Amino acid sequence: MPGFTEKAAQNLALVREKKPLIHNITNFVVMNSTANALLAMGASPVMAHAQNEVEDMVAFAGALVLNIGTLEDDWIESMLKAGKKASSLDTPIVLDPVGSGATPLRTESAKLIIDQTNLSVIRGNASEILSLRHEDSKTKGVDSMHTVDQAAETAKMLAGELNTTLAITGPVDLITDGSRVLRVSNGHELMGYVTGTGCAATATIGAFLAVDDDPLIATATALAFYGLAGEVAAKTASAPGSFMIAMQDALYTITPADLQNGARFEGE
Amino acid sequence: MPGFTEKAAQNLALVREKKPLIHNITNFVVMNSTANALLAMGASPVMAHAQNEVEDMVAFAGALVLNIGTLEDDWIESMLKAGKKASSLDTPIVLDPVGSGATPLRTESAKLIIDQTNLSVIRGNASEILSLRHEDSKTKGVDSMHTVDQAAETAKMLAGELNTTLAITGPVDLITDGSRVLRVSNGHELMGYVTGTGCAATATIGAFLAVDDDPLIATATALAFYGLAGEVAAKTASAPGSFMIAMQDALYTITPADLQNGARFEGE
Amino acid sequence: MPGFTEKAAQNLALVREKKPLIHNITNFVVMNSTANALLAMGASPVMAHAQNEVEDMVAFAGALVLNIGTLEDDWIESMLKAGKKASSLDTPIVLDPVGSGATPLRTESAKLIIDQTNLSVIRGNASEILSLRHEDSKTKGVDSMHTVDQAAETAKMLAGELNTTLAITGPVDLITDGSRVLRVSNGHELMGYVTGTGCAATATIGAFLAVDDDPLIATATALAFYGLAGEVAAKTASAPGSFMIAMQDALYTITPADLQNGARFEGE
Repeated sequence: MPGFTEKAAQNLALVREKKPLIHNITNFVVMNSTANALLAMGASPVMAHAQNEVEDMVAFAGALVLNIGTLEDDWIESMLKAGKKASSLDTPIVLDPVGSGATPLRTESAKLIIDQTNLSVIRGNASEILSLRHEDSKTKGVDSMHTVDQAAETAKMLAGELNTTLAITGPVDLITDGSRVLRVSNGHELMGYVTGTGCAATATIGAFLAVDDDPLIATATALAFYGLAGEVAAKTASAPGSFMIAMQDALYTITPADLQNGARFEGE
Repeated sequence: MPGFTEKAAQNLALVREKKPLIHNITNFVVMNSTANALLAMGASPVMAHAQNEVEDMVAFAGALVLNIGTLEDDWIESMLKAGKKASSLDTPIVLDPVGSGATPLRTESAKLIIDQTNLSVIRGNASEILSLRHEDSKTKGVDSMHTVDQAAETAKMLAGELNTTLAITGPVDLITDGSRVLRVSNGHELMGYVTGTGCAATATIGAFLAVDDDPLIATATALAFYGLAGEVAAKTASAPGSFMIAMQDALYTITPADLQNGARFEGE
Repeated sequence: MPGFTEKAAQNLALVREKKPLIHNITNFVVMNSTANALLAMGASPVMAHAQNEVEDMVAFAGALVLNIGTLEDDWIESMLKAGKKASSLDTPIVLDPVGSGATPLRTESAKLIIDQTNLSVIRGNASEILSLRHEDSKTKGVDSMHTVDQAAETAKMLAGELNTTLAITGPVDLITDGSRVLRVSNGHELMGYVTGTGCAATATIGAFLAVDDDPLIATATALAFYGLAGEVAAKTASAPGSFMIAMQDALYTITPADLQNGARFEGE
């Protein structure tokens, strides 16, 4: 996929050059690590969630990141306000439906955000993404994702139903906008032993949405870049603490050329 | 104490095997570091505090961790809701009464939780634990803990009055369920220079409560394991930042055999 | 400036000896890193924000740190309550007006705190500090700070108008109490790639306000010390993750003699 890896390298150079402001309304657990990830890669994070501030703040932003971990009612209102304002400004929005499917509050909140805002991308694991289906969805839940081909078909159908780009992350990430499908196989298993790596991956998508109009390519760039940081970190670190710090370093040290060489895309 | 160290090793193997879900309602300062500690040791953390979610979430959990740092009224309600639900399900609960005794809000909130839920363990320092006494308690405050023997007698009496297992942590940790008394002497002084080590120790107790029905042994395992991680970290790190990261690594690298060799228990 | 560097060294020794309790009402992003910075340097942090607790807590504190990042209405009330109580007790207060000037909520909240409490110090970047001007201020915004001399004159005038010590931080920090002006040139560019370094610098000012009655000198000590920690960190770390950890180490390892040798002050 030479075209995609070149585009990914260009996108990384653009983030470093433009330092886009990324407005995050995210969970308490990952606010610090998400801000540090965005800073390390060259973006400019801001965290703001007050209902009487989010519309002012998102007006400055290159992208909006919504994340429903550690949710409470006030925050949902803030996410909807920020999301509607971003939608009206054509500012891209990425949603991380953390824990959707696990509790009604999470599932219903994720669906509210989907219904009331114009999302560019939703990133989650398979069970989170599948929990977002409409009641009359034609997809069939986890059963419909047993094989790689089934997963791609289900994801394409669901992306069409939800009218957005979906990123289903796992050992291999699957990205689809309903017509195109890309797979990204960067990453390392130690990422599962550090909290907030999924959330930071979502924020990374936000950073690339701010510099690339094509959500599919922005998302693929982000997941390849963030996963490559995990691979680079694993070269010097073999346990979660030092790995976490080495990943933060790698987000800063990986060059566009490194990304072009290291991104592992597969597509239709 | 060969029996105890073997049990501790078995418990660590069980946490790594079962990866219990630990539901934390904890303070803002330590959410990230607590989640990372639980992940590193092999457990599965979830943080959720919304009143309209905590009962749903705790129903999945192997243990509930309540921590009253950075408290506010809404959160107390959530802790009570989650605690009552956990109690009704016989899901073990551990309370960290951070700052109890320092302000009325903290002391009264800790007492509310003690009264309205069925706690398996309370972990705190001596002044926090002593602040939890009923007005008509037969213990006499800090004066009643001048010697090691006095401390043990006071702790046993208080555990009986509060009907739970108490872990009074310090250079040597004292654990009692009202009849048995165990002491754990693992740990390192640099742990006092990193925020949230006490809170993470409490969450570690939660992880072991999820795999061991005996709160005294689960607590002793947790404090020996967490303290040993501090000792391991101090072998390569001599200042708080690198120590903090080395501890996170050690929670991942310490094997059951390491714990069996390194745990330092003393009992009656 | 031999007198100032000696005083800075004495102040660091005093923080290490007295371990002052620093009460922080700060933003979610930096609570953990701020607490760790204060612990590493030898102070005792506490984070508490509940309206029914802040007056009790600040009564124990050697200084109060107010930080308006991730602001919401409830927290402003808490900051005002804590600030008024601290003012009544002559407990020093430092304000970090994060994002003032960017949104009305931030600017208005910062001004409320300035009006209703007795601030010892305000620390921010130039645009944040300039946003705090009264409508009838004689200063002229960013235009009035084009040269080093203009910046000093503007800052002096504004410190007089706001009746506090101002610390305008950047590559060179400018500190003035309206009559005296000091410049501190410690620091490292990697500090800009780690979230919360500004906020931790403000908390460090809090730690030194607790041991030095002269806000100008306390602030200069804090900014020299915190900036020196960045310089020390940069000797072993060249990317943000390892740099962040090395800074935390340096806050613990830098001795008063190191500070006396390394502080770079310039004054009128």
